[in-house]
Amino acid sequence: MRGPTGWTLADGRDLLFFTLPGHTPAPVPDRRPLPPRDPEPTQLRFDRTTGQWVIIAAQRQDRTYHPPAEACPLCPGPNGLTSEVPAADYDVVVFENRFPSLAGAGAVVATPPEGAGFVAAPGVGRCEVICFSADHTGSFGDLPAAHALLVVQAWRHRTADLLNRPGVEQVFCFENRGEEIGVTLGHPHGQIYGYPYLTPRTAAMLAQAREHRITHGGNLFADLLAAELADGARIVARSEHFTAFVPFAARWPVEVHLYPNRCVHNLTELTEAELDDFAVIYRDLLGRFDRIYDAPLPYMAALHQYRPEGAQVDGYFHVELMSIRRSATKLKYLAASESAMDAFIADVTPEAVAARLRAL
Amino acid sequence: MRGPTGWTLADGRDLLFFTLPGHTPAPVPDRRPLPPRDPEPTQLRFDRTTGQWVIIAAQRQDRTYHPPAEACPLCPGPNGLTSEVPAADYDVVVFENRFPSLAGAGAVVATPPEGAGFVAAPGVGRCEVICFSADHTGSFGDLPAAHALLVVQAWRHRTADLLNRPGVEQVFCFENRGEEIGVTLGHPHGQIYGYPYLTPRTAAMLAQAREHRITHGGNLFADLLAAELADGARIVARSEHFTAFVPFAARWPVEVHLYPNRCVHNLTELTEAELDDFAVIYRDLLGRFDRIYDAPLPYMAALHQYRPEGAQVDGYFHVELMSIRRSATKLKYLAASESAMDAFIADVTPEAVAARLRAL
Repeated sequence: MRGPTGWTLADGRDLLFFTLPGHTPAPVPDRRPLPPRDPEPTQLRFDRTTGQWVIIAAQRQDRTYHPPAEACPLCPGPNGLTSEVPAADYDVVVFENRFPSLAGAGAVVATPPEGAGFVAAPGVGRCEVICFSADHTGSFGDLPAAHALLVVQAWRHRTADLLNRPGVEQVFCFENRGEEIGVTLGHPHGQIYGYPYLTPRTAAMLAQAREHRITHGGNLFADLLAAELADGARIVARSEHFTAFVPFAARWPVEVHLYPNRCVHNLTELTEAELDDFAVIYRDLLGRFDRIYDAPLPYMAALHQYRPEGAQVDGYFHVELMSIRRSATKLKYLAASESAMDAFIADVTPEAVAARLRAL
Repeated sequence: MRGPTGWTLADGRDLLFFTLPGHTPAPVPDRRPLPPRDPEPTQLRFDRTTGQWVIIAAQRQDRTYHPPAEACPLCPGPNGLTSEVPAADYDVVVFENRFPSLAGAGAVVATPPEGAGFVAAPGVGRCEVICFSADHTGSFGDLPAAHALLVVQAWRHRTADLLNRPGVEQVFCFENRGEEIGVTLGHPHGQIYGYPYLTPRTAAMLAQAREHRITHGGNLFADLLAAELADGARIVARSEHFTAFVPFAARWPVEVHLYPNRCVHNLTELTEAELDDFAVIYRDLLGRFDRIYDAPLPYMAALHQYRPEGAQVDGYFHVELMSIRRSATKLKYLAASESAMDAFIADVTPEAVAARLRAL
């Protein structure tokens, strides 16, 4: 992959074009009369009852909400007046979110912070949008193979870049797909967050992995992958470099974890052959998701990435794919047991879901 | 309060009538041809990546889903043929859930379990439904004062009873209200779970409280309540025995925590005067919730209760009220940042929400 082509939006935000072989980005000036970016950063607040940071981003309340298709801010804008992407066409673009939860450079925050009182910190970090395609009606699962690989290459580029920025502790590439989970822009896109702290889920997983290493001597995730392969009942798909399975203790009605067969910490450690393979099997899984029911499946895709050192050294790169659809007509809601107590109740057995996904 | 009147449903489930002064329960035989209860317990599975138990309850997939109002299973059933409550009328009833996630007696499970492989355990415990009123169209916030107190007394009764049952580690009284959070029965009701493990959220809070005691010498929750009172900006309501505030690091668009001014572990430790006061201020808060917008607010109410000894001794009984409504027309969805990383992003400042709720 060639390096991306950089551009600057009217309010100073960065935009990057990632381009398929033979294509050349042709951006035009962004001539929108955008207001200046909010100089007030958002705020992090520490919740002493859970030991977790919470982001307070009050200025996002008026963010873009279900615009009509002809006003889609993610479609190409050839005249530089209608879109976040001032160009007649594009393959994959990444730009800074206009309504970021986290922005600017600063310090990574510790968990727990010092002292015992109320503690707040500036919401530094980075929130980016990644458009998978210029085609408003497409989806990741429908992308041609080379195009899917380009998205994965863009994820890798952003991971490497953001991990080197001051104030970023963890890089999270993710996709929310479907109105059912609150997506307000139908255009196929994902997001990339650079958090200034280790997220609570990641911290919990790393604590488990550290404990496992001390007690049992191996890498927790590698041992789990080996156990899933030995059992076999929950394997969904396997390729030379990757394995997809429904986890033994799946929380969601549809949940698939995709692990590289070799332990790496994040996308930047994958070889070119592994990255190629990742794009293929990831797209295959999304295709299976959309074939479960007659309609596109609402899903969340979460890339769990780690730094290769320090407190994150026991991490193992993988993707967790989750859907709240529990039948063709019903959704799983996270009500009080899940939302207040983190006590998940699954309505299906992981083995039944795996068998169904395998057969598709 | 008099003790409740017990009854037995056609498939053997327990039903309890809690009755206002001057009323007498008049149940009739439950003549429904109910199938026998599922003898297969649900399953607990241990997720080694997070260190948390997950409940796998596949047989609940066909549970009652948005029945028409005339077929409401929570309305009184005077002929014993149409309802879970075979009686011409009732004040408050509690009965075992027909589609339980947890049922039967057994052993409390440890976190983490022994060993390193896949670990499952029977889903023992208890799932109860509590109907707040025979009036299908009412809500907790609309109950007369004496009726609200009767619900609270029923919660206290169930807490005392379930804490003494084998296989119950934690008793969770809660209410999910509103179709927006997946409620499939409109009749005003809540649920009571007896979990056979300490829920992940509770375990995390107790770990924080233990650490706080060791480091700072006091009870974490008492110190937080004192800090909220000293600050004042987030206090919503205060009575002789209770204080309600929006927490400093609120996660939800509308979130209020209700603490007794004196540290108790659960409802059974409250004096009669405190219980009376609790019913009054709790109902007041729900009334404020419904006055924020022109429509009833979807909410979750979570009673955080603890055992007064052992690993739970640092707990402090309180209620956490949460709504996903972030404006009159918009909901907050828990998408990938929240669902995959537990990294919450709030769209409003806690101070603004507190000011609004105070003024209502």
